[in-house]
Amino acid sequence: MQLLILGGDGFCGWPTALHLSAHGHDVTIVDSCVRRRIDDELGVRSLTPIRLLPERLDAWKSVTGRSIDFVEMDLAEDYSALTDLLATKRPDAVVHFAEQRAAPYSMKSSAHKRYTIQNNVAVTHNLLAGVVESGLDCHIVHLGTMGVYGYESVPMDLPEGYLTVAYPDRTGRNHSREILYPTQPGSVYHLSKSLDQLLFQFYANNDGVRITDLHQGIVWGTQTDETELDLRLVNRFDYDGDYGTVLNRFLVEAAIGHRLTVHGTGGQTRAFINIRDTVRCIRLAVESGAEVSGRVRVMNQVTETHRVIDLAHLVADLVGAEVELVPNPRKEADENELRVRNDRLVGLGLEPIYLATGLLTESVEIAQKYADRIERDRIVSTSYWNRSRRAAAEEHVYG
Amino acid sequence: MQLLILGGDGFCGWPTALHLSAHGHDVTIVDSCVRRRIDDELGVRSLTPIRLLPERLDAWKSVTGRSIDFVEMDLAEDYSALTDLLATKRPDAVVHFAEQRAAPYSMKSSAHKRYTIQNNVAVTHNLLAGVVESGLDCHIVHLGTMGVYGYESVPMDLPEGYLTVAYPDRTGRNHSREILYPTQPGSVYHLSKSLDQLLFQFYANNDGVRITDLHQGIVWGTQTDETELDLRLVNRFDYDGDYGTVLNRFLVEAAIGHRLTVHGTGGQTRAFINIRDTVRCIRLAVESGAEVSGRVRVMNQVTETHRVIDLAHLVADLVGAEVELVPNPRKEADENELRVRNDRLVGLGLEPIYLATGLLTESVEIAQKYADRIERDRIVSTSYWNRSRRAAAEEHVYG
Repeated sequence: MQLLILGGDGFCGWPTALHLSAHGHDVTIVDSCVRRRIDDELGVRSLTPIRLLPERLDAWKSVTGRSIDFVEMDLAEDYSALTDLLATKRPDAVVHFAEQRAAPYSMKSSAHKRYTIQNNVAVTHNLLAGVVESGLDCHIVHLGTMGVYGYESVPMDLPEGYLTVAYPDRTGRNHSREILYPTQPGSVYHLSKSLDQLLFQFYANNDGVRITDLHQGIVWGTQTDETELDLRLVNRFDYDGDYGTVLNRFLVEAAIGHRLTVHGTGGQTRAFINIRDTVRCIRLAVESGAEVSGRVRVMNQVTETHRVIDLAHLVADLVGAEVELVPNPRKEADENELRVRNDRLVGLGLEPIYLATGLLTESVEIAQKYADRIERDRIVSTSYWNRSRRAAAEEHVYG
Repeated sequence: MQLLILGGDGFCGWPTALHLSAHGHDVTIVDSCVRRRIDDELGVRSLTPIRLLPERLDAWKSVTGRSIDFVEMDLAEDYSALTDLLATKRPDAVVHFAEQRAAPYSMKSSAHKRYTIQNNVAVTHNLLAGVVESGLDCHIVHLGTMGVYGYESVPMDLPEGYLTVAYPDRTGRNHSREILYPTQPGSVYHLSKSLDQLLFQFYANNDGVRITDLHQGIVWGTQTDETELDLRLVNRFDYDGDYGTVLNRFLVEAAIGHRLTVHGTGGQTRAFINIRDTVRCIRLAVESGAEVSGRVRVMNQVTETHRVIDLAHLVADLVGAEVELVPNPRKEADENELRVRNDRLVGLGLEPIYLATGLLTESVEIAQKYADRIERDRIVSTSYWNRSRRAAAEEHVYG
């Protein structure tokens, strides 16, 4: 298949581009490389020494003999370049990772809130308008987030995107209807993905655009079969308070002998997936595109759920560290229950990699190997969800 | 009260600004005057000869002795000017009309789709981020649209924003929950207001911003008690295929001896409100702001519903014209039922003006008085919702 990977220089985009190329697809990466400029802004860098994108692509060519094209483009700003590219490449599918993807970054300041909303909405909407204008029958595969469902406890396993609800009609009899699961985003980032959902619903309905929206959990792990072929192909490893997800932060804290900092009580339950499963899921979504028509196909791209405090103790036991509870910078429920359906991707052939299978040691080794690159004062999150969360943090003395 | 009226040069914004000023409030209009540039783009002008905003404000001052401030600002682009203004004026409430508001305009081309989404999302989100950054306890009153509910027939009277639904929990017992009414926008414009709803939900929940979202029906009528005080205060009257709403287009077609063109079967049922009620509703919403806290207050700003074909015959009988069915440029249900709750605004004191009360003759007179200003070839809509709607229109020969 002819594929565009929007945001193909990022943490999920890069290994996905390699995986799809390895499986025989013609891959073009489209990226503004803004994620690297955000590293500069935050004064932090990937723990793993990642190469510039052209070097990465040269290495992929030399190791595998396969070519991946690269087009540098700001998809939020340069709509005509996007439509030109669609007309030239005539992709069978476009995989869309090209959004600001960190919740804490999206909450740092008004400027970061505005950037996240405007960039993410503009890229998604430009893509949709561009596909309609092109007249191509092109399948869009989008990386959404479990966060659109929200994290209040609900007495059910979260369905895949849609919910059948009942309400009384004028005569008092129940009327049944299937709706998009009511969204309850917990950050400006998650909000932007909730806006995406409505954009997709409209363009699928009005113009028949074929769309798959993958509601992904928190990704753990670093390498895939393809990124570990050569050091120059190594994937990003973010550990800072903005972009570092919870497991990576624990591993880095452990590597420098710091206590593992748990936000709030750690009773928050979240959904997880290994990066190796991420790239497989996206391939399964792309290769099953023929089954998508009519309404948006939503699939939950998760393999298991855990309480944050349990993850902290898992890492603590693995590496011999202590756990510290710190004020939660986020406005979220202290504790929640979470169970998630993932039948669709399992039905397409996903065989999950679980945390318990021991692959976490790979990330432990990476954290230890590159411990001298860790910027200690960048690990704790200083992005507060609102005034009261900032005030709570400022009263706390870290242990 | 100290009030900002964003978009106070437009069809609803202008009479609202006057009405609030007449009722003793300190009013500042904030507008980029983009609506006048869109007139130039479309090669059309208000049927009524509206004055430039500074002339309008001078006239208001000379007629009533009251001052209205004007700040020219592009709220989508100039965030720092907005936060400066909030800090200077410290408004008690901000009335937000500053969005591209025509469904056909939003569907004309990719450029118009992109402008509508990016402008409307940016203005709403800049306002929300700005209010949070300012730390003001400022009530936002936003003009939404009935279109967020969608126009499929539902066997109930549309509630005001929220719907209580039930779905089975893990044990099969019904779980009940109140949700934002599931949105089904029928154009990119209506989509932008659905996105607004999610922005409001998030900022009310995360930061406690106090918000009223008014889901307004189609506005008919032209003048209010304040705009008819002086010819220089006259309100806009749009009749073109993009900005002219259905009643205005019928009146103008009648005034030039054209058949009244009904889209599709005319079986579409829509909700309506007179412009005099619009300005009263907004005053009621502003002056009852103290009751808003916690979740967003949603009120349906409508007074009656009618089938489009019935409106056509009403006008035809009034002025002696014929009715012609033409292919519908919009993708929408041929026919639908629509009944709407409006208890909240009636509870605040709204006494509706109905079409049957005879006020339509005022608009008939305006259409006849300014008939020589009508651009005949601008009345029919040439904005098509998708490829199949365009194809249907191109096969049709107009009578």
